[in-house]
Amino acid sequence: MCPVQSFKISCFQSRKCLALSMHVQQMFPIMLGCRAQAHCVCCALIGFVRGTPLRSDWTASDSGNFSSLRPLCFCAVCCMSVIMATAGKVIKCKAAVAWGRGRPCRSKRWRWLRPKPTRSASSGDGDRRSRERAAFQLFATGICHTDSYTLSGSDPEGLFPVILGHEGAGTVESVGEGVTKFKAGDTVVPLYVPQCGDCKFCKNPKTNLCQKIRVTQGQGLMPDRTTRFTCQGKPVFHFMGCSTFSEYTVVVDISLAKVDEKAALDKVCLLGCGISTGYGAVLNTAKVEPGSTCAVFGLGALGLAVIMGCKEVGASRIIGVDINPDKFQKAKEFGATDLVNPKDHSRPIQEVLVEMTDGGLDYTFECVGNVAIMRAALEACHKGWGVSVIIGVAGAGQEISTRPFQLVTGRTWKGTAFGGWKSVESVPKLVDDYMNKKLKVDEFVTHTLPFDKINEGFELLHSGQSIRTVLNF
Amino acid sequence: MCPVQSFKISCFQSRKCLALSMHVQQMFPIMLGCRAQAHCVCCALIGFVRGTPLRSDWTASDSGNFSSLRPLCFCAVCCMSVIMATAGKVIKCKAAVAWGRGRPCRSKRWRWLRPKPTRSASSGDGDRRSRERAAFQLFATGICHTDSYTLSGSDPEGLFPVILGHEGAGTVESVGEGVTKFKAGDTVVPLYVPQCGDCKFCKNPKTNLCQKIRVTQGQGLMPDRTTRFTCQGKPVFHFMGCSTFSEYTVVVDISLAKVDEKAALDKVCLLGCGISTGYGAVLNTAKVEPGSTCAVFGLGALGLAVIMGCKEVGASRIIGVDINPDKFQKAKEFGATDLVNPKDHSRPIQEVLVEMTDGGLDYTFECVGNVAIMRAALEACHKGWGVSVIIGVAGAGQEISTRPFQLVTGRTWKGTAFGGWKSVESVPKLVDDYMNKKLKVDEFVTHTLPFDKINEGFELLHSGQSIRTVLNF
Repeated sequence: MCPVQSFKISCFQSRKCLALSMHVQQMFPIMLGCRAQAHCVCCALIGFVRGTPLRSDWTASDSGNFSSLRPLCFCAVCCMSVIMATAGKVIKCKAAVAWGRGRPCRSKRWRWLRPKPTRSASSGDGDRRSRERAAFQLFATGICHTDSYTLSGSDPEGLFPVILGHEGAGTVESVGEGVTKFKAGDTVVPLYVPQCGDCKFCKNPKTNLCQKIRVTQGQGLMPDRTTRFTCQGKPVFHFMGCSTFSEYTVVVDISLAKVDEKAALDKVCLLGCGISTGYGAVLNTAKVEPGSTCAVFGLGALGLAVIMGCKEVGASRIIGVDINPDKFQKAKEFGATDLVNPKDHSRPIQEVLVEMTDGGLDYTFECVGNVAIMRAALEACHKGWGVSVIIGVAGAGQEISTRPFQLVTGRTWKGTAFGGWKSVESVPKLVDDYMNKKLKVDEFVTHTLPFDKINEGFELLHSGQSIRTVLNF
Repeated sequence: MCPVQSFKISCFQSRKCLALSMHVQQMFPIMLGCRAQAHCVCCALIGFVRGTPLRSDWTASDSGNFSSLRPLCFCAVCCMSVIMATAGKVIKCKAAVAWGRGRPCRSKRWRWLRPKPTRSASSGDGDRRSRERAAFQLFATGICHTDSYTLSGSDPEGLFPVILGHEGAGTVESVGEGVTKFKAGDTVVPLYVPQCGDCKFCKNPKTNLCQKIRVTQGQGLMPDRTTRFTCQGKPVFHFMGCSTFSEYTVVVDISLAKVDEKAALDKVCLLGCGISTGYGAVLNTAKVEPGSTCAVFGLGALGLAVIMGCKEVGASRIIGVDINPDKFQKAKEFGATDLVNPKDHSRPIQEVLVEMTDGGLDYTFECVGNVAIMRAALEACHKGWGVSVIIGVAGAGQEISTRPFQLVTGRTWKGTAFGGWKSVESVPKLVDDYMNKKLKVDEFVTHTLPFDKINEGFELLHSGQSIRTVLNF
């Protein structure tokens, strides 16, 4: 058993922490607390002896007691003690490996992995890029449609075997040579759209699509063209530069955002993709103005995030569109003013919406990944100024189409990736906005499961029952 | 013969005017000059007796001699005397009538027309819109691809018989009741995109597509659902609210821009469509920034106007693309920095351009009306920020298509109609820009023909020999 196993105790509520402090089998001293609950105050509560009053005046300078603490929770300080045990060594940990296209990511497929050590000589001193990486330990990860899309084999560029997952949050375990912006213990969110700050994309305020590591990331490799994962003796590919379906992962330093250490990791992991994407599509890509009319096609996590963005900027009307009316209540809670089920109408949905809005919508958002819906979203836009933003990822080889007259008469067709956020600088701000209650995140989490139940999480996604399932390690 | 026939003498150069003043068959007094040459100073030259020195001190207050002047030129004052003869009466004049879909607009098809009198009782006093119209006499008209498109029958909504033409310039003959912004004698350019200033489109700064008379204009009718043209006893439809292939036409007052009376009408007629559209696509729709890289697909009048716009805003690179290399020289003169013939390459043109520009263009413009080229133009755009603007009009039923990934990775697909110009307020400024030599117009006119040779003009268009042919009445 690797030392990471000692983290397996879930500790999400302070009362549970307190109960643990009284547990007969518990060794002391212990530090209680939970990274997954930002508001949990017991992170700084130390129990030195069973049954004695917990101390809350512990500080990092009390390092005399540090090494003997038994980590029972997800707080950064606890992790630090484990980091000391793993830094510079090959880490054996648990991960969900997708072994082949179209095959379910079954639990029996999980294997112990050996990510290459971050200071491995094999990275090659001459290759500066290979040294600019950080290994970090994940505490929570969301399951996104893109993971499912790749797992299903729909993505012709999908590589196997692979560790999927790209919505994660955790703590830096160690950093490679040349990494200056992170240190062990930093609380981080991995980024599938990096931000090097240096390429022509990063220097252009119009885009967030940093291209520095695009080629190797697309090949499931680190910039030195190696994979840092092995399982059963075989190399395993990285996914979207993140691979968060693993207890430990290795990413390039430009693919990591340092966020507030008090943030609840089982929530802010979702800011690594879906929520940020939908929210940013409104603020950055469409730049929706106050008073605008908006329609959102698809009321999953992306769609809800779009609704949240539209409400935030003061849209006058937010029409939610979905063929699953079970999603309407949540959409309403998020701010949808109207809800439409295309199945209730015999006419094309764009005609229904154009009639509902006296000529069409100012902004529409496609959050499904269906090319027919992308067309409907464009054609539901108002002549003269309507803007339609594609957010969903369509199946391989599928194409969008429309009459060019739709554009000549003033509609604009756009798309967004990661909501247009320049990732490294924006994700920490989004985390702050969440902590300041400006941004909803908790409301997206409909299911929380232990990591072992990852396939149950995929099933919840496919059945439309979940908005987001968060897996805790 | 209607009195308009006395205008048939072409008089485009001041030396010709002077020669005429000596012509033995010329009756005196005459006033010489030419509306078609803005720089012609002889507009104010009056010959009272053959062979005597011309007087240049004539003013409108010399009205004692006014009614006896024989108009020999196109200047506003000359016209005035004719206006007096036609105002309030049915006008019989020459026009090119397109009798059926796909049939050439042959000269033998021309007929004397009787537009309804502008003060006709049949317009109905109760219908305010029907009174808000102006009849005006055309002095010059351009032949645009849209005329050809409708004439060919490619437009399924095209109506016949019809008087085509929408690039014109002339002088107001008379105005209907309720028209306050125009008076007889005003120099005007008709507008196929009107500007009422009152509808939600006019009030929205994002669009120029005034919709006030859209429905009836699309039906080839005036807002009171009548046509003002008859020929051989049959009603003849209006076209794009303009019908400039006629010596006289009737338009709604919101479809008319009053321009500088000194403007050369056989040039500024082109500001009624092609030149303004291409130029505006750059300035208003794409909003090209200095230093941008641009590609222009199709080097006809639209494409040249786009090049002019790109040069005006300081684009760093302007790549002209056409399969007819005969167009390259002119494009170069307008400002193209590179010229590419897709026939010279075995690869798709978008790949060639992406390679030429290290990733693609900041802006591309489709000026052909071909859906395959529209796709190429989009896909030649730079990832992250490239914007493609469709200007050309595609054939009926044709659709554009692409992979949605093109948009999700940051490209924007737009279109433009009349270059985004709010027509009534913008066309006079464009005329001023032309007169101040900020805007090229003369350079677009490759052929000038008498109106009778209209079909020769269409042939020049189809053969690719002409950029723009201007017909003079």
